[in-house]
Amino acid sequence: MKRSFIREILEHTNSDTISFAGGLPDENLFPMQELKEAFAKSLEDSNSLQYSTSSGILPLKKIIANFYTKEGFFTTADNILITSGSQQALDIISRFNSGKSIATQKPSYLGALNLFELNNIKVNKFSIQKGKTNLYELKRVAMISDLIYLIPDFQNPTGATIPIKQREEIAQICQEYGTILIEDAPYSKLYFKEPINSISSFIQESSFHLGSFSKVLAPALRVGWIRASKELLEPLIAYKEAMDLHTNSLSQQAIYHFLKKPECFDKHLEKLRANYKAKMQYFCKMLDKDLPTFNYIKPKGGMFFYGDFGGVDAKEILKQTLKKGVIFVPGIEFGGKADEVRFNFTHSTFEELAKGIEIIAKVLYNTKKR
Amino acid sequence: MKRSFIREILEHTNSDTISFAGGLPDENLFPMQELKEAFAKSLEDSNSLQYSTSSGILPLKKIIANFYTKEGFFTTADNILITSGSQQALDIISRFNSGKSIATQKPSYLGALNLFELNNIKVNKFSIQKGKTNLYELKRVAMISDLIYLIPDFQNPTGATIPIKQREEIAQICQEYGTILIEDAPYSKLYFKEPINSISSFIQESSFHLGSFSKVLAPALRVGWIRASKELLEPLIAYKEAMDLHTNSLSQQAIYHFLKKPECFDKHLEKLRANYKAKMQYFCKMLDKDLPTFNYIKPKGGMFFYGDFGGVDAKEILKQTLKKGVIFVPGIEFGGKADEVRFNFTHSTFEELAKGIEIIAKVLYNTKKR
Repeated sequence: MKRSFIREILEHTNSDTISFAGGLPDENLFPMQELKEAFAKSLEDSNSLQYSTSSGILPLKKIIANFYTKEGFFTTADNILITSGSQQALDIISRFNSGKSIATQKPSYLGALNLFELNNIKVNKFSIQKGKTNLYELKRVAMISDLIYLIPDFQNPTGATIPIKQREEIAQICQEYGTILIEDAPYSKLYFKEPINSISSFIQESSFHLGSFSKVLAPALRVGWIRASKELLEPLIAYKEAMDLHTNSLSQQAIYHFLKKPECFDKHLEKLRANYKAKMQYFCKMLDKDLPTFNYIKPKGGMFFYGDFGGVDAKEILKQTLKKGVIFVPGIEFGGKADEVRFNFTHSTFEELAKGIEIIAKVLYNTKKR
Repeated sequence: MKRSFIREILEHTNSDTISFAGGLPDENLFPMQELKEAFAKSLEDSNSLQYSTSSGILPLKKIIANFYTKEGFFTTADNILITSGSQQALDIISRFNSGKSIATQKPSYLGALNLFELNNIKVNKFSIQKGKTNLYELKRVAMISDLIYLIPDFQNPTGATIPIKQREEIAQICQEYGTILIEDAPYSKLYFKEPINSISSFIQESSFHLGSFSKVLAPALRVGWIRASKELLEPLIAYKEAMDLHTNSLSQQAIYHFLKKPECFDKHLEKLRANYKAKMQYFCKMLDKDLPTFNYIKPKGGMFFYGDFGGVDAKEILKQTLKKGVIFVPGIEFGGKADEVRFNFTHSTFEELAKGIEIIAKVLYNTKKR
């Protein structure tokens, strides 16, 4: 099995590297004080360090269920399975559906594509072009697929968002063909203007909605979840148990203590959105100034810009910028075209954003077209 | 897939239940103060909450490697892969070896047997009888198996320990047939008298040695590891990455801070051994007094007693003791005989040990033989 290009690259960088590569949140925005208190509180009870239930601790499942219910998507703790990040959520669902077929966006999240391969799932692709999901293609592949996998909000890698009207159409397609939806939503709370209803909320009995605290709290804690009907969720618990018994329950407990005061999480999310939006706007400004031939669609949230170098091979550019201490991910790694590129804008400082683009521009404009 | 009987039962108990069922450490012995400090220290650096490398954080891998090297089993950080508990370690190895065949002890750890089934691995069994591993059978099945899985120290469920001479013989058998060893050693540091060299130390290039902090520090943290040659370990990293990106790295960091002062861990281990040994001896005394027909072998470490009810069906007894608030696991769940039983003695208080045995005795001596 192929390792992730991004994660391999990350292992070869140092603290001076300007990285537009990984989907990393800004660690300067982690709510350190609140998390310190949450961990200290959790560690007052030795039971927080004992073995725990496979589906996750009840108080956290209840709070997550309540997120959904508040948005009009009725959910109880029984509809939630806590996983070791949403990466594991995807693995559990894929493993249970081993040998089946799945319709996926092209390009899409590499970690998902790897899991479909590992679990012997046949992939049928529908394209995203210039930020738009091709529904005609989606319908065609949904007909011949058991499952659909997509990231509707600020997609990885394209940053594309599926508008509400298309979400309703996708829900209808799923119902028409009896296709199960896997809706991967790690970025959904990182909108710059407004949230959009999930597709799963239209087809509550035939969807898996995947959430994660990695992008909105702290990736190191590896806590994500699956929201699904009890019927779909029940058989997955045995898989979860076989795979790692249960998710780190001290971290679950600490997240519970953090979330218990709702204003605390809301304030934190506001801060993330404001900061990432400012970085996105600054990145736009710098791109337009220094990289005018880079064609992109402005993201409405999330962590990524996606575009193309107008015919120039992105891997060739990366080889050269790597030597100058700047990295990003060529779109080809996600199933995109050779001249396409994904830039992460959330992890770098404003200074790094400007400097990184400047270095890429220097390399690009000294490189001939293919 | 079948769920673990033990974990299902655990979900149906309350705080008053006397549980001899799970392999639970005593939470009163968790080093709470030291772990509080270790987590506080880790949370001083926001990098502890960021995404991390798939194989585990380097400082922790170095300390674990050093455990081995100090015992004369030369190991570097490159030989260590940190996993989400040793349950995941077993899953990674099994998944990579999907479709192959494995020789296992009978009875054996249910979580391992489940994983072999999930990963489509053919199981060939060799027996443990009255605390003794049948080497004749082992040799016969090793001949026709790609791998051997065993727990050499204070085995789960039998409590049996493989003596040093047999360990050397097993290493020879592995070499003779080119069989890869998976040595699962979560209890190895919980000896009551003295440690015994691992089998892996005799065949360093063709073995996986699995360790865990669950039994000797805190299960909730879900941190375990695989020790193997670089050649055997390298392909597993891609699997680890696909499965959950990396293990909770805040917990890795905290464990590193805890272990950094070696006297701290050594003192903690001494305390665990002394306490568990005292409980084991008390349990023996109570068994001999109240359950004289229970045939067992005294364990030399670990967490379990294993024995038989002399022909009486253990599941029938459990059904009745469950109503009276006492639980244990029938040996048949691990592939043992219908009258066999596993008792965990580490999780209960001395009072609970006595009371639990008394209740089981009352039920047993009111129940006819089959």
